Amino acid sequence: MKIDELARKPGPWLRGGGPMSDIVISSRIRLARNIAGYPFLSKVSDEQRTEVVNLIRRRVDGEGVGRKWRYVDLERVDELDRQVLVERHLISRQLVDARGARGVSFAKDESASVMVNEEDHLRIQVVRSGVQLEDIWEEINRLDDRLEEGIDYAFHPRYGYLTACPTNVGTGIRVSVMLHLPALKLTGEIEKFFRAAKDMHLAIRGLFGEGTEATGDFFQISNQVTLGRTEEEVIDAFKHDVIPRIIKYETQERKRLVKERPLALDDRVWRSYGALRNARTISSEETMLHLSHLRMGINLGRIKDVDLTTVNELFLITQPAHLQKLNGSRLNGEQRSAIRAELIRRRLGGH
Amino acid sequence: MKIDELARKPGPWLRGGGPMSDIVISSRIRLARNIAGYPFLSKVSDEQRTEVVNLIRRRVDGEGVGRKWRYVDLERVDELDRQVLVERHLISRQLVDARGARGVSFAKDESASVMVNEEDHLRIQVVRSGVQLEDIWEEINRLDDRLEEGIDYAFHPRYGYLTACPTNVGTGIRVSVMLHLPALKLTGEIEKFFRAAKDMHLAIRGLFGEGTEATGDFFQISNQVTLGRTEEEVIDAFKHDVIPRIIKYETQERKRLVKERPLALDDRVWRSYGALRNARTISSEETMLHLSHLRMGINLGRIKDVDLTTVNELFLITQPAHLQKLNGSRLNGEQRSAIRAELIRRRLGGH
Repeated sequence: MKIDELARKPGPWLRGGGPMSDIVISSRIRLARNIAGYPFLSKVSDEQRTEVVNLIRRRVDGEGVGRKWRYVDLERVDELDRQVLVERHLISRQLVDARGARGVSFAKDESASVMVNEEDHLRIQVVRSGVQLEDIWEEINRLDDRLEEGIDYAFHPRYGYLTACPTNVGTGIRVSVMLHLPALKLTGEIEKFFRAAKDMHLAIRGLFGEGTEATGDFFQISNQVTLGRTEEEVIDAFKHDVIPRIIKYETQERKRLVKERPLALDDRVWRSYGALRNARTISSEETMLHLSHLRMGINLGRIKDVDLTTVNELFLITQPAHLQKLNGSRLNGEQRSAIRAELIRRRLGGH
Repeated sequence: MKIDELARKPGPWLRGGGPMSDIVISSRIRLARNIAGYPFLSKVSDEQRTEVVNLIRRRVDGEGVGRKWRYVDLERVDELDRQVLVERHLISRQLVDARGARGVSFAKDESASVMVNEEDHLRIQVVRSGVQLEDIWEEINRLDDRLEEGIDYAFHPRYGYLTACPTNVGTGIRVSVMLHLPALKLTGEIEKFFRAAKDMHLAIRGLFGEGTEATGDFFQISNQVTLGRTEEEVIDAFKHDVIPRIIKYETQERKRLVKERPLALDDRVWRSYGALRNARTISSEETMLHLSHLRMGINLGRIKDVDLTTVNELFLITQPAHLQKLNGSRLNGEQRSAIRAELIRRRLGGH
């Protein structure tokens, strides 16, 4: 039961602790690639779909790319296992919803993964805690090269890498950062940030990327256009413009809260802490909201008796699939809410 | 500064502890009386109004009724002092809103009071914690007799005591009980109780009697008709029918909650406890709500580290006027909410 083991502990990057991770939870780069000689997935036959899987698995499993990888065949695991992978950000909901031969290879530390037959034949992803775009770029570039040594990518000398969706043609790169912006949300300044992001041609999404709504205090922002810009240009824009700007906005609002509205801030933070330590039944949405406030409280030094690692771990393991894996049995919504509340109280030393 | 001292501690009956006080917070009897030879207050002259005050004060202060009484001249104290008296249930809002010479005499332990020139010349009241109607009746009867020895009451051989409002004519008695019905409220069964009360010709009001809405988990119920029934009949109906029925309803719902929905019950109770121990700013309405849940939690043995005396005291001192008296200065709403939260956290050992 590989996935049962997986669910039991947070992977290294999920534990947090990267640079600036009080605001930028994680950075991620993904590359979209397809194999030459095979049609895009919308036109592929079942046999070809399976051939694509085998081709990629041979290349990754054969240690052709270094490190130890594990492959999960999405057709052979159940809904709960798939959901665990989504909750860990190892696969997208789209890969779950897709049909036929498909899966994911991921490095043991979960910082790198290759989704097979999602929207493109390959979706290569590297993710790390906090702001680490340069390291990520170096790693994903190397990984991409090693893969390419054994796989013939669909590439056009003029357009670049060919992808199923035109928005990815060219470099096939998407850079994204997962943000925790509780102060901008609390003061209502988040709207300004949304407008600024739009002006910079950035997409704003929810915690699980494409197709998920930006709710609560967590936002994923990513570049929208790939054609006509080099990978370095996209990354540089994030590194020198997008990320510093967001950090400045949120830091400014946090300082303003501490200075001008410390009571409102503490009220928010401590009430959430109180709710987590006392609730007997709690939904994942409410948990997320309170953990977000608690996280802000710890980052601003208002709460000192909980550490961030505990909060990061709770974010992960209170999600529905993880909760059921940890509990060892299927649970309905009502049961989950009770078990979730108990788990949180135990971890936070509640009543 | 008599009233400053008063505000600093809860009077004996406000500390609770009477029989059945987990459900019946207090019982009260009041008698409406007028002085013969003086018009009702709607027609009285300023001079007569003052004469009425003097007549009653002479009778009460002269120890004509036993015990030590203190008189507060409502014209000579400020709005905050008046509000303290309302919050302690020593006077009604109507007495505050009335005009001209008026006041209240009350016994040192606050269990007996005589409002002068409220709706009638005299409103005699005796109140005790829990269910104690017999003792109250005995006491108020004696008090009424002692007053009558020195005051000539307006009395008609056929109609009985004459009062400003026809609903009080006859015995002038109103029996009321203050109820804490959190379980009936939580399960929604309170509506049934309302209907039953209506069938029994009872009025349901809020925490501060006439003109206040029944909100939260606290309700005051009282008889509506006085004419054609003796005092003993009215009291007997409460003692043998109304009160036992309410206690049965609420007890039943509490037992059902403990047995069938312990999680929902504990969630409610502990979240409220958590909010009280963690909030940095809290309104009186929210305080009342959480204290109500906490009170239920203690009474049902779900919370063991707080005692009822603390909760009863918090009900009293977190009210706006008491809070300002305790703080020693006038506070606006925002300041009150912050001071209130701090006070509660200190008393409940919160964070």
